[in-house]
Amino acid sequence: MAREKLSSAAVDEALTRLNGWTLGSDGGSIARTFEFRNFSEAFAFMTRVALAAEKMNHHPDWSNVYKTVHIRLNTHDAGGLTALDIELAGKIDRLAGGSTGR
Amino acid sequence: MAREKLSSAAVDEALTRLNGWTLGSDGGSIARTFEFRNFSEAFAFMTRVALAAEKMNHHPDWSNVYKTVHIRLNTHDAGGLTALDIELAGKIDRLAGGSTGR
Repeated sequence: MAREKLSSAAVDEALTRLNGWTLGSDGGSIARTFEFRNFSEAFAFMTRVALAAEKMNHHPDWSNVYKTVHIRLNTHDAGGLTALDIELAGKIDRLAGGSTGR
Repeated sequence: MAREKLSSAAVDEALTRLNGWTLGSDGGSIARTFEFRNFSEAFAFMTRVALAAEKMNHHPDWSNVYKTVHIRLNTHDAGGLTALDIELAGKIDRLAGGSTGR
């Protein structure tokens, strides 16, 4: 179930419960950019996300430049978004705490 | 001195001492992709690179997808490559250990 592709209605509904995630142009991924005060805080956040992702066995595509972290989620095997992506996005939102999402 | 832009001859010489780094098409950055066995090993490597980068106060532009880590180095303030980039690349090579550079 968790790896079943979500309908676009289900994705839209999930996005209203998340914080600042946007749907990719192809509708097959969601992304959010996080800003921290410095590299140390950005990487501390990444470490917490890495632990959560490893625990779920569901991993982000992400990049970091100094204090900015960009995260993109999708489920490769399903060719789009699944409940796993929504669950991980929710966890990431909670871990982001004081960051400025943009 | 460390933040002075290197000549292209100096960059070429430095690349011969590094392991698998390639010069960006504009000559202003170097990049290398690392492959690990899984996400856990990839992120462990990233953590060690993060500590080295923070100690140098010189940070990579990097991305990660599961077991692959792509790292790009340049010195923004100098508008190109400096001794700091070469130094960090050498440290990253040593930290990479068993990874398959590609």
